[in-house]
Amino acid sequence: MRVTEIRIAGFGGQGVILSAVVLGKAASIYENGFATMTQNFGPEARGGACSAQLVVSDSPVLYPYVTQPDIMVVMSQEAYNRFAHELKPEGVLIVERDLVRVSNMNRDKKVYSVPATRFAEELGKRMVLNSVMVGFFTAVTKLLSPDAVRKAVADSVPASFRDLNLKAFEKGFEYGNTKLAGSPATPEFEEVAYEKE
Amino acid sequence: MRVTEIRIAGFGGQGVILSAVVLGKAASIYENGFATMTQNFGPEARGGACSAQLVVSDSPVLYPYVTQPDIMVVMSQEAYNRFAHELKPEGVLIVERDLVRVSNMNRDKKVYSVPATRFAEELGKRMVLNSVMVGFFTAVTKLLSPDAVRKAVADSVPASFRDLNLKAFEKGFEYGNTKLAGSPATPEFEEVAYEKE
Repeated sequence: MRVTEIRIAGFGGQGVILSAVVLGKAASIYENGFATMTQNFGPEARGGACSAQLVVSDSPVLYPYVTQPDIMVVMSQEAYNRFAHELKPEGVLIVERDLVRVSNMNRDKKVYSVPATRFAEELGKRMVLNSVMVGFFTAVTKLLSPDAVRKAVADSVPASFRDLNLKAFEKGFEYGNTKLAGSPATPEFEEVAYEKE
Repeated sequence: MRVTEIRIAGFGGQGVILSAVVLGKAASIYENGFATMTQNFGPEARGGACSAQLVVSDSPVLYPYVTQPDIMVVMSQEAYNRFAHELKPEGVLIVERDLVRVSNMNRDKKVYSVPATRFAEELGKRMVLNSVMVGFFTAVTKLLSPDAVRKAVADSVPASFRDLNLKAFEKGFEYGNTKLAGSPATPEFEEVAYEKE
Protein backbone atom coordinates (compact mmCIF):
# COMPACT_ATOMS: atom_id res chain seq x y z
CA MET A 1 0.00 0.00 0.00
CA ARG A 2 1.92 3.02 -1.23
CA VAL A 3 1.20 6.52 0.08
CA THR A 4 -2.28 7.45 -1.08
CA GLU A 5 -3.83 10.86 -0.54
CA ILE A 6 -7.59 11.05 -0.25
CA ARG A 7 -9.98 13.93 0.23
CA ILE A 8 -13.57 13.37 1.31
CA ALA A 9 -15.86 16.40 1.18
CA GLY A 10 -19.51 17.26 1.52
CA PHE A 11 -21.71 18.97 4.06
CA GLY A 12 -22.29 18.38 7.75
CA GLY A 13 -24.48 15.39 8.58
CA GLN A 14 -23.39 13.25 5.63
CA GLY A 15 -20.82 11.36 7.66
CA VAL A 16 -17.77 12.82 5.93
CA ILE A 17 -15.60 12.45 9.01
CA LEU A 18 -16.98 9.03 9.88
CA SER A 19 -16.17 7.83 6.35
CA ALA A 20 -12.59 8.99 6.77
CA VAL A 21 -12.34 7.38 10.20
CA VAL A 22 -13.63 4.07 8.84
CA LEU A 23 -11.14 4.06 5.96
CA GLY A 24 -8.30 5.10 8.27
CA LYS A 25 -9.12 2.32 10.71
CA ALA A 26 -9.33 -0.18 7.86
CA ALA A 27 -5.86 0.84 6.70
CA SER A 28 -4.46 0.20 10.17
CA ILE A 29 -6.31 -3.11 10.51
CA TYR A 30 -5.17 -4.14 7.05
CA GLU A 31 -1.58 -5.32 6.92
CA ASN A 32 -0.50 -3.10 9.82
CA GLY A 33 -0.85 -0.03 7.65
CA PHE A 34 -0.92 3.57 8.85
CA ALA A 35 -3.21 6.48 8.23
CA THR A 36 -3.82 10.04 9.37
CA MET A 37 -7.09 11.86 9.11
CA THR A 38 -7.09 15.63 9.29
CA GLN A 39 -10.06 17.92 9.44
CA ASN A 40 -9.77 21.68 9.06
CA PHE A 41 -12.17 23.98 10.83
CA GLY A 42 -12.31 27.53 9.58
CA PRO A 43 -14.94 30.17 9.07
CA GLU A 44 -16.35 28.12 6.17
CA ALA A 45 -17.45 25.52 8.74
CA ARG A 46 -20.18 27.98 9.70
CA GLY A 47 -21.77 27.39 6.32
CA GLY A 48 -21.92 23.65 6.90
CA ALA A 49 -19.07 22.65 4.57
CA CYS A 50 -17.18 19.63 5.82
CA SER A 51 -14.01 18.08 4.48
CA ALA A 52 -11.54 15.46 5.66
CA GLN A 53 -8.03 14.68 4.48
CA LEU A 54 -6.88 11.11 4.73
CA VAL A 55 -3.40 9.78 4.01
CA VAL A 56 -2.87 6.01 4.07
CA SER A 57 0.47 4.30 3.77
CA ASP A 58 2.35 1.19 4.74
CA SER A 59 4.63 3.29 6.94
CA PRO A 60 3.90 6.09 9.43
CA VAL A 61 2.62 9.22 7.73
CA LEU A 62 5.01 12.16 8.05
CA TYR A 63 2.95 14.83 6.36
CA PRO A 64 -0.79 14.66 6.98
CA TYR A 65 -1.96 17.44 4.67
CA VAL A 66 -3.34 16.40 1.30
CA THR A 67 -2.15 18.62 -1.52
CA GLN A 68 -3.04 16.68 -4.67
CA PRO A 69 -5.37 13.79 -3.89
CA ASP A 70 -5.10 10.46 -5.67
CA ILE A 71 -8.71 9.82 -4.77
CA MET A 72 -11.51 12.28 -4.08
CA VAL A 73 -14.95 11.50 -2.67
CA VAL A 74 -17.37 14.36 -3.20
CA MET A 75 -20.87 14.53 -1.75
CA SER A 76 -21.99 18.09 -2.47
CA GLN A 77 -21.82 20.50 -5.39
CA GLU A 78 -20.12 23.11 -3.24
CA ALA A 79 -17.39 20.61 -2.37
CA TYR A 80 -17.04 19.68 -6.03
CA ASN A 81 -16.67 23.30 -7.07
CA ARG A 82 -14.12 23.95 -4.37
CA PHE A 83 -11.93 20.87 -4.53
CA ALA A 84 -12.31 19.02 -7.84
CA HIS A 85 -9.50 20.93 -9.57
CA GLU A 86 -7.01 19.58 -7.00
CA LEU A 87 -7.42 15.98 -8.15
CA LYS A 88 -4.21 14.42 -9.43
CA PRO A 89 -3.95 13.68 -13.19
CA GLU A 90 -5.36 10.17 -13.68
CA GLY A 91 -6.84 10.41 -10.20
CA VAL A 92 -10.10 8.80 -9.17
CA LEU A 93 -13.21 10.89 -8.52
CA ILE A 94 -16.15 9.34 -6.67
CA VAL A 95 -19.33 11.39 -6.48
CA GLU A 96 -22.79 11.19 -4.96
CA ARG A 97 -24.73 11.00 -8.22
CA ASP A 98 -27.85 12.91 -7.24
CA LEU A 99 -26.02 15.73 -5.48
CA VAL A 100 -23.05 16.45 -7.73
CA ARG A 101 -22.97 17.49 -11.35
CA VAL A 102 -19.55 16.80 -12.83
CA SER A 103 -18.29 19.49 -15.20
CA ASN A 104 -14.99 20.92 -16.36
CA MET A 105 -13.21 17.68 -15.53
CA ASN A 106 -10.28 16.51 -17.65
CA ARG A 107 -10.88 13.19 -19.31
CA ASP A 108 -7.73 11.69 -17.84
CA LYS A 109 -9.66 11.25 -14.58
CA LYS A 110 -11.66 8.17 -13.68
CA VAL A 111 -15.12 9.18 -12.53
CA TYR A 112 -17.45 6.84 -10.63
CA SER A 113 -20.83 7.86 -9.32
CA VAL A 114 -23.29 6.22 -6.95
CA PRO A 115 -26.75 7.30 -5.79
CA ALA A 116 -25.71 6.74 -2.18
CA THR A 117 -28.37 8.90 -0.55
CA ARG A 118 -31.10 7.12 -2.51
CA PHE A 119 -29.73 3.69 -1.58
CA ALA A 120 -29.53 4.75 2.07
CA GLU A 121 -33.13 5.95 2.01
CA GLU A 122 -34.20 2.63 0.48
CA LEU A 123 -32.49 0.91 3.40
CA GLY A 124 -34.56 3.04 5.75
CA LYS A 125 -32.04 5.56 7.12
CA ARG A 126 -30.52 8.38 5.15
CA MET A 127 -27.72 8.60 7.71
CA VAL A 128 -26.11 5.38 6.43
CA LEU A 129 -25.24 7.02 3.13
CA ASN A 130 -21.63 7.24 4.27
CA SER A 131 -21.45 3.46 4.61
CA VAL A 132 -22.82 3.13 1.06
CA MET A 133 -20.08 5.52 -0.12
CA VAL A 134 -17.45 3.56 1.81
CA GLY A 135 -18.59 0.29 0.24
CA PHE A 136 -18.56 1.83 -3.23
CA PHE A 137 -15.10 3.31 -2.56
CA THR A 138 -13.83 -0.11 -1.50
CA ALA A 139 -15.07 -1.74 -4.70
CA VAL A 140 -13.85 0.80 -7.23
CA THR A 141 -10.51 1.78 -5.71
CA LYS A 142 -9.40 -1.68 -4.50
CA LEU A 143 -7.13 0.22 -2.10
CA LEU A 144 -8.19 -1.69 1.01
CA SER A 145 -9.31 -5.23 1.70
CA PRO A 146 -13.13 -5.45 1.83
CA ASP A 147 -12.94 -7.46 5.05
CA ALA A 148 -10.78 -4.85 6.73
CA VAL A 149 -13.29 -2.17 5.78
CA ARG A 150 -16.23 -4.28 6.97
CA LYS A 151 -14.53 -4.68 10.35
CA ALA A 152 -13.84 -0.95 10.50
CA VAL A 153 -17.49 -0.15 9.72
CA ALA A 154 -18.71 -2.57 12.41
CA ASP A 155 -16.24 -1.09 14.86
CA SER A 156 -17.06 2.57 14.19
CA VAL A 157 -20.85 2.83 14.39
CA PRO A 158 -23.18 2.49 17.39
CA ALA A 159 -24.07 -1.17 18.06
CA SER A 160 -27.75 -0.55 17.36
CA PHE A 161 -26.94 0.60 13.81
CA ARG A 162 -24.25 -1.95 13.04
CA ASP A 163 -26.33 -4.29 10.88
CA LEU A 164 -27.86 -1.47 8.93
CA ASN A 165 -24.45 0.07 8.22
CA LEU A 166 -23.07 -3.28 7.11
CA LYS A 167 -26.02 -3.69 4.75
CA ALA A 168 -25.33 -0.21 3.42
CA PHE A 169 -21.67 -1.12 2.93
CA GLU A 170 -22.64 -4.25 0.94
CA LYS A 171 -25.08 -2.26 -1.18
CA GLY A 172 -22.38 0.22 -2.17
CA PHE A 173 -19.77 -2.49 -2.58
CA GLU A 174 -21.93 -4.62 -4.88
CA TYR A 175 -22.94 -1.60 -6.91
CA GLY A 176 -19.29 -0.67 -7.34
CA ASN A 177 -18.39 -4.19 -8.46
CA THR A 178 -21.25 -4.22 -10.96
CA LYS A 179 -20.01 -0.94 -12.37
CA LEU A 180 -16.49 -2.30 -12.76
CA ALA A 181 -17.76 -5.54 -14.35
CA GLY A 182 -19.83 -3.53 -16.80
CA SER A 183 -16.73 -2.19 -18.49
CA PRO A 184 -14.37 -5.15 -18.82
CA ALA A 185 -12.31 -3.60 -21.62
CA THR A 186 -11.20 -0.58 -19.68
CA PRO A 187 -11.58 0.27 -16.03
CA GLU A 188 -11.37 3.94 -16.91
CA PHE A 189 -14.97 4.15 -17.99
CA GLU A 190 -16.71 7.41 -17.34
CA GLU A 191 -20.30 6.81 -16.65
CA VAL A 192 -21.10 10.32 -15.60
CA ALA A 193 -22.42 12.57 -18.32
CA TYR A 194 -20.11 15.52 -18.71
CA GLU A 195 -21.70 18.87 -19.12
CA LYS A 196 -21.42 20.17 -22.65
CA GLU A 197 -20.13 23.69 -22.45
CA MET B 1 -6.61 33.06 20.74
CA ARG B 2 -2.95 32.24 20.28
CA VAL B 3 -1.83 28.90 18.83
CA THR B 4 -2.81 26.23 21.33
CA GLU B 5 -1.89 22.57 20.97
CA ILE B 6 -4.23 20.03 22.52
CA ARG B 7 -4.12 16.26 22.71
CA ILE B 8 -7.20 14.23 23.63
CA ALA B 9 -6.64 10.53 24.27
CA GLY B 10 -8.51 7.53 25.58
CA PHE B 11 -10.00 4.39 24.15
CA GLY B 12 -12.53 3.79 21.38
CA GLY B 13 -16.14 4.54 22.30
CA GLN B 14 -15.37 7.38 24.71
CA GLY B 15 -15.96 10.04 22.09
CA VAL B 16 -12.34 11.16 21.82
CA ILE B 17 -12.74 12.23 18.20
CA LEU B 18 -16.14 13.80 18.78
CA SER B 19 -14.68 15.86 21.62
CA ALA B 20 -11.96 17.14 19.31
CA VAL B 21 -14.50 17.88 16.57
CA VAL B 22 -16.69 19.84 18.98
CA LEU B 23 -13.78 21.94 20.24
CA GLY B 24 -12.51 22.49 16.69
CA LYS B 25 -15.93 23.64 15.54
CA ALA B 26 -16.24 25.92 18.55
CA ALA B 27 -12.92 27.54 17.67
CA SER B 28 -14.14 28.25 14.15
CA ILE B 29 -17.51 29.53 15.37
CA TYR B 30 -15.77 31.68 17.98
CA GLU B 31 -14.27 34.85 16.57
CA ASN B 32 -13.61 33.29 13.17
CA GLY B 33 -10.84 31.16 14.60
CA PHE B 34 -9.22 28.17 12.92
CA ALA B 35 -8.51 24.64 14.00
CA THR B 36 -7.23 21.36 12.63
CA MET B 37 -7.96 17.99 14.11
CA THR B 38 -5.68 15.08 13.24
CA GLN B 39 -6.15 11.47 14.13
CA ASN B 40 -3.43 8.89 13.60
CA PHE B 41 -4.32 5.30 12.83
CA GLY B 42 -1.59 2.75 13.31
CA PRO B 43 -1.31 -0.81 14.52
CA GLU B 44 -2.07 0.40 18.07
CA ALA B 45 -5.60 1.20 16.88
CA ARG B 46 -6.20 -2.56 16.92
CA GLY B 47 -5.90 -2.44 20.70
CA GLY B 48 -8.61 0.19 20.96
CA ALA B 49 -6.34 3.15 21.75
CA CYS B 50 -7.67 6.40 20.35
CA SER B 51 -6.06 9.81 20.24
CA ALA B 52 -6.75 13.12 18.54
CA GLN B 53 -4.52 16.12 18.00
CA LEU B 54 -6.17 19.50 17.90
CA VAL B 55 -4.52 22.82 17.08
CA VAL B 56 -6.57 25.99 17.48
CA SER B 57 -5.45 29.43 16.45
CA ASP B 58 -6.71 32.78 15.31
CA SER B 59 -5.08 32.21 11.93
CA PRO B 60 -4.99 29.16 9.61
CA VAL B 61 -3.00 26.30 11.09
CA LEU B 62 0.14 25.52 9.09
CA TYR B 63 1.39 22.52 11.04
CA PRO B 64 -1.31 20.20 12.35
CA TYR B 65 0.82 17.80 14.38
CA VAL B 66 0.96 18.35 18.11
CA THR B 67 4.46 17.95 19.53
CA GLN B 68 4.22 19.43 23.02
CA PRO B 69 0.62 20.01 24.02
CA ASP B 70 -0.42 23.05 26.04
CA ILE B 71 -3.49 21.09 27.15
CA MET B 72 -3.99 17.36 27.43
CA VAL B 73 -7.27 15.52 28.04
CA VAL B 74 -6.71 11.95 29.13
CA MET B 75 -9.46 9.36 29.55
CA SER B 76 -7.56 6.10 30.04
CA GLN B 77 -4.55 4.92 31.99
CA GLU B 78 -2.92 3.62 28.83
CA ALA B 79 -3.21 7.04 27.25
CA TYR B 80 -1.81 8.65 30.39
CA ASN B 81 1.19 6.34 30.41
CA ARG B 82 1.84 6.94 26.76
CA PHE B 83 1.33 10.68 26.40
CA ALA B 84 1.55 12.44 29.77
CA HIS B 85 5.29 13.08 29.52
CA GLU B 86 4.74 15.17 26.39
CA LEU B 87 2.79 17.86 28.23
CA LYS B 88 4.40 21.29 28.08
CA PRO B 89 5.92 22.72 31.30
CA GLU B 90 3.10 24.57 33.08
CA GLY B 91 0.67 22.82 30.77
CA VAL B 92 -2.84 21.81 31.76
CA LEU B 93 -3.75 18.17 32.32
CA ILE B 94 -7.42 17.16 32.46
CA VAL B 95 -8.17 13.57 33.44
CA GLU B 96 -11.16 11.28 33.86
CA ARG B 97 -10.89 10.82 37.61
CA ASP B 98 -12.08 7.23 37.92
CA LEU B 99 -10.05 5.92 35.00
CA VAL B 100 -6.69 7.65 35.35
CA ARG B 101 -4.24 7.60 38.23
CA VAL B 102 -1.85 10.53 37.96
CA SER B 103 1.75 9.72 38.86
CA ASN B 104 5.23 10.93 37.98
CA MET B 105 3.89 14.34 37.03
CA ASN B 106 5.98 17.44 37.64
CA ARG B 107 4.34 19.90 39.98
CA ASP B 108 4.62 22.72 37.48
CA LYS B 109 1.60 21.26 35.70
CA LYS B 110 -2.00 22.15 36.49
CA VAL B 111 -4.04 19.01 36.98
CA TYR B 112 -7.84 18.97 36.93
CA SER B 113 -9.92 15.85 37.27
CA VAL B 114 -13.59 15.10 36.74
CA PRO B 115 -15.61 11.91 37.22
CA ALA B 116 -17.07 12.31 33.74
CA THR B 117 -18.14 8.71 33.22
CA ARG B 118 -19.98 8.70 36.55
CA PHE B 119 -21.72 11.99 35.74
CA ALA B 120 -22.69 10.63 32.33
CA GLU B 121 -24.14 7.48 33.88
CA GLU B 122 -26.12 9.61 36.34
CA LEU B 123 -27.56 11.45 33.35
CA GLY B 124 -28.64 8.10 31.93
CA LYS B 125 -26.19 7.52 29.06
CA ARG B 126 -22.54 6.69 29.49
CA MET B 127 -21.92 7.80 25.90
CA VAL B 128 -22.34 11.49 26.83
CA LEU B 129 -19.17 11.41 28.91
CA ASN B 130 -17.39 13.28 26.15
CA SER B 131 -19.80 16.20 26.50
CA VAL B 132 -19.12 16.25 30.25
CA MET B 133 -15.39 16.37 29.48
CA VAL B 134 -15.92 19.15 26.92
CA GLY B 135 -17.91 21.19 29.46
CA PHE B 136 -15.24 20.70 32.10
CA PHE B 137 -12.53 21.61 29.58
CA THR B 138 -14.42 24.81 28.71
CA ALA B 139 -14.63 25.86 32.37
CA VAL B 140 -11.07 25.17 33.45
CA THR B 141 -9.14 26.23 30.34
CA LYS B 142 -11.21 29.33 29.42
CA LEU B 143 -9.81 28.84 25.91
CA LEU B 144 -13.16 29.06 24.14
CA SER B 145 -16.39 30.91 24.76
CA PRO B 146 -18.93 28.67 26.55
CA ASP B 147 -21.63 29.72 24.09
CA ALA B 148 -19.49 28.77 21.10
CA VAL B 149 -18.88 25.35 22.61
CA ARG B 150 -22.58 24.89 23.43
CA LYS B 151 -23.42 25.63 19.79
CA ALA B 152 -20.76 23.21 18.62
CA VAL B 153 -22.11 20.46 20.89
CA ALA B 154 -25.67 21.02 19.65
CA ASP B 155 -24.43 20.99 16.08
CA SER B 156 -22.32 17.83 16.37
CA VAL B 157 -24.56 15.22 17.96
CA PRO B 158 -27.66 13.47 16.60
CA ALA B 159 -30.79 15.55 17.14
CA SER B 160 -32.33 12.92 19.40
CA PHE B 161 -29.41 13.20 21.83
CA ARG B 162 -28.98 16.98 21.67
CA ASP B 163 -30.67 17.85 24.96
CA LEU B 164 -28.88 15.11 26.84
CA ASN B 165 -25.49 16.21 25.51
CA LEU B 166 -26.22 19.82 26.41
CA LYS B 167 -27.14 18.72 29.94
CA ALA B 168 -23.89 16.77 30.08
CA PHE B 169 -21.99 19.85 28.91
CA GLU B 170 -23.56 21.97 31.66
CA LYS B 171 -22.79 19.34 34.28
CA GLY B 172 -19.11 19.32 33.35
CA PHE B 173 -19.01 23.10 32.95
CA GLU B 174 -20.54 23.77 36.37
CA TYR B 175 -18.29 21.22 38.02
CA GLY B 176 -15.26 22.89 36.44
CA ASN B 177 -16.36 26.33 37.63
CA THR B 178 -16.93 25.02 41.15
CA LYS B 179 -13.44 23.59 41.16
CA LEU B 180 -11.96 26.90 40.05
CA ALA B 181 -13.99 28.84 42.62
CA GLY B 182 -12.82 26.48 45.34
CA SER B 183 -9.28 27.75 45.07
CA PRO B 184 -9.58 31.53 44.75
CA ALA B 185 -6.01 32.21 45.82
CA THR B 186 -4.39 30.27 43.03
CA PRO B 187 -5.89 28.74 39.95
CA GLU B 188 -3.02 26.27 39.87
CA PHE B 189 -4.54 24.05 42.49
CA GLU B 190 -3.84 20.39 42.18
CA GLU B 191 -6.76 18.43 43.40
CA VAL B 192 -5.50 15.08 42.23
CA ALA B 193 -3.60 13.06 44.79
CA TYR B 194 -0.16 12.32 43.48
CA GLU B 195 1.15 8.87 44.00
CA LYS B 196 3.91 8.73 46.57
CA GLU B 197 6.78 6.84 45.07
